[in-house]
Amino acid sequence: MSKQTVLTGITTTGTPHLGNYVGAIRPAIAASKDANFAPFYFLADYHALIKCHEPEKVRQSSLEIAATWLALGLDTSNAVFYRQSDVPEIMELTWMLTCVTAKGLMNRSHAYKASVADNEHNGENDPDKGINMGLFSYPILMAADILMFNAHKVPVGKDQIQHIEMARDIAGRFNHIYGEHFVLPEAIIDANTATLLGLDGRKMSKSYNNTIPLFEPEKKLKKLINKIKTNSQEPGDPKDPTDCTLFSIYQAFANADEVAAVRQRYAEGIAWGEMKQLLFDYINAHVAPARERYDDLMQNPQHIEEQLQEGARKARAISAPFIKELREAVGISRIAL
Amino acid sequence: MSKQTVLTGITTTGTPHLGNYVGAIRPAIAASKDANFAPFYFLADYHALIKCHEPEKVRQSSLEIAATWLALGLDTSNAVFYRQSDVPEIMELTWMLTCVTAKGLMNRSHAYKASVADNEHNGENDPDKGINMGLFSYPILMAADILMFNAHKVPVGKDQIQHIEMARDIAGRFNHIYGEHFVLPEAIIDANTATLLGLDGRKMSKSYNNTIPLFEPEKKLKKLINKIKTNSQEPGDPKDPTDCTLFSIYQAFANADEVAAVRQRYAEGIAWGEMKQLLFDYINAHVAPARERYDDLMQNPQHIEEQLQEGARKARAISAPFIKELREAVGISRIAL
Repeated sequence: MSKQTVLTGITTTGTPHLGNYVGAIRPAIAASKDANFAPFYFLADYHALIKCHEPEKVRQSSLEIAATWLALGLDTSNAVFYRQSDVPEIMELTWMLTCVTAKGLMNRSHAYKASVADNEHNGENDPDKGINMGLFSYPILMAADILMFNAHKVPVGKDQIQHIEMARDIAGRFNHIYGEHFVLPEAIIDANTATLLGLDGRKMSKSYNNTIPLFEPEKKLKKLINKIKTNSQEPGDPKDPTDCTLFSIYQAFANADEVAAVRQRYAEGIAWGEMKQLLFDYINAHVAPARERYDDLMQNPQHIEEQLQEGARKARAISAPFIKELREAVGISRIAL
Repeated sequence: MSKQTVLTGITTTGTPHLGNYVGAIRPAIAASKDANFAPFYFLADYHALIKCHEPEKVRQSSLEIAATWLALGLDTSNAVFYRQSDVPEIMELTWMLTCVTAKGLMNRSHAYKASVADNEHNGENDPDKGINMGLFSYPILMAADILMFNAHKVPVGKDQIQHIEMARDIAGRFNHIYGEHFVLPEAIIDANTATLLGLDGRKMSKSYNNTIPLFEPEKKLKKLINKIKTNSQEPGDPKDPTDCTLFSIYQAFANADEVAAVRQRYAEGIAWGEMKQLLFDYINAHVAPARERYDDLMQNPQHIEEQLQEGARKARAISAPFIKELREAVGISRIAL
């Protein structure tokens, strides 16, 4: 039985938050320790350039994300953990795929269409206003990320399923023209993956600016949890945990017995202040050991860089010979040896 | 006085013909020997992938083009002569530029619009039918080719002026966001550059399949020249050299006195057969020494490859440190040294 190659990229435009942790990081760290998987995890800094033209922000985010994954115990002896931009073969592959991708396929991308719809909604004359070519063609870059390592499975949220389908389409087209070089990747949608609510009760997301950073210092974490919106029910009123942000976060961290116990407390009318304290204590205890490692790592970027360089070496040990094979296939290889 | 950097790419999808020679190759070879210029000439094989999905054709064309330029005496001690795909930094730069290029700019590309117009003309429902993303985004690749070496001047035909303007736009946008990194390139349109007519009287072009390959063996050359269309005027009839394919080709090779003499022969009613013989003798004598060198080179691809590798080394001595600077500028550099 050969290992299943799984692949996940993390766009380097923000600070990891509790939502990222339960939705993507925690399952990825678990998979990194599972001998059935050969995971590829990368800092998607080429992707970051699409949306973020602030170099310091991209750089800081790369540092924070790398420190977070390492602090949480990513097993880099099994997983290949690298920075996308350290694997320039991905850019070459992107161009090769660009030349076999129908423009019509990109026209149908949900992300692009949503931007066009926004422009139309705002009464813009130009439906493409403010849209850069990075946004328009990023499904091709994402296909290259996946196909470069012939990943079998790509864990994604529902909004990303289309991109995996596009990667399959593009891979199939390339294989048809140039021979079988690529595995057709499959999306894995984990129905059990928790979606956390943020400070304002909407989905926790950096685009809503409603996040709780994962490794916020203790005091700041407490402050943020205290800021979480609740309804105006009094202490003693029985409360419904459904759609309660505090409960949703607690549930994503606690085990089944603990969740059942807190559900009972809701029925008994726990005060919001008390619930916030309980949630803070729980989360704080949960993250404290990793937070300490995180703080140490952030003081020692040299160590993080070494880990990323080691990951890049492993990644390029695959990508460099593969791109050579692909160059040969498309006809841009050397004339003579 | 610093040298002017000029840059020309040759798409590797065909065999060099007389039209290429007089339009692009001959002036480029001359510039390679001019100490006022620092020329960059490259086999545009990444570009070839847009239109040509036949690996053997791309490979063969690379060989023929490289052999042609070397046989014609390209001065590689002054000019940097390289294969585009040997400089992978161009691909990285392409992506960086992609992220600052408005999609609207690409929508306005003449080449893309012409393809859409063709589809509309043919009654296609999908205006983007058959258009790949390579065609749509190739002005960005072309911008990367130019900006990678901060070329000042780019000799182009009129149909390419827009692409140089786009490269300026993209460079200006990048400089605005990330600081001054790029020289804004300028198009040079040489009004004296000859446009040859082909076998059928239309512009000589591989897309019309009406070309006369530059280094066709003698017998084949004679056959092709005999195939050139003429009107049905009889020997002895005075003839007008205007729009005459035979004359247009002769004129592109001969000096002023020789052209004047043949113009006189036209007035005197030279027979088409005689004119074809005269043209063949002239062209054949002109290309014979280089053709011999070409045939030798084609038997010795190892030597061609060495020249290209040497060019790639010189190109990368510039592109590798420059891409490092650009990575730093956009925020995807290393976290620590």
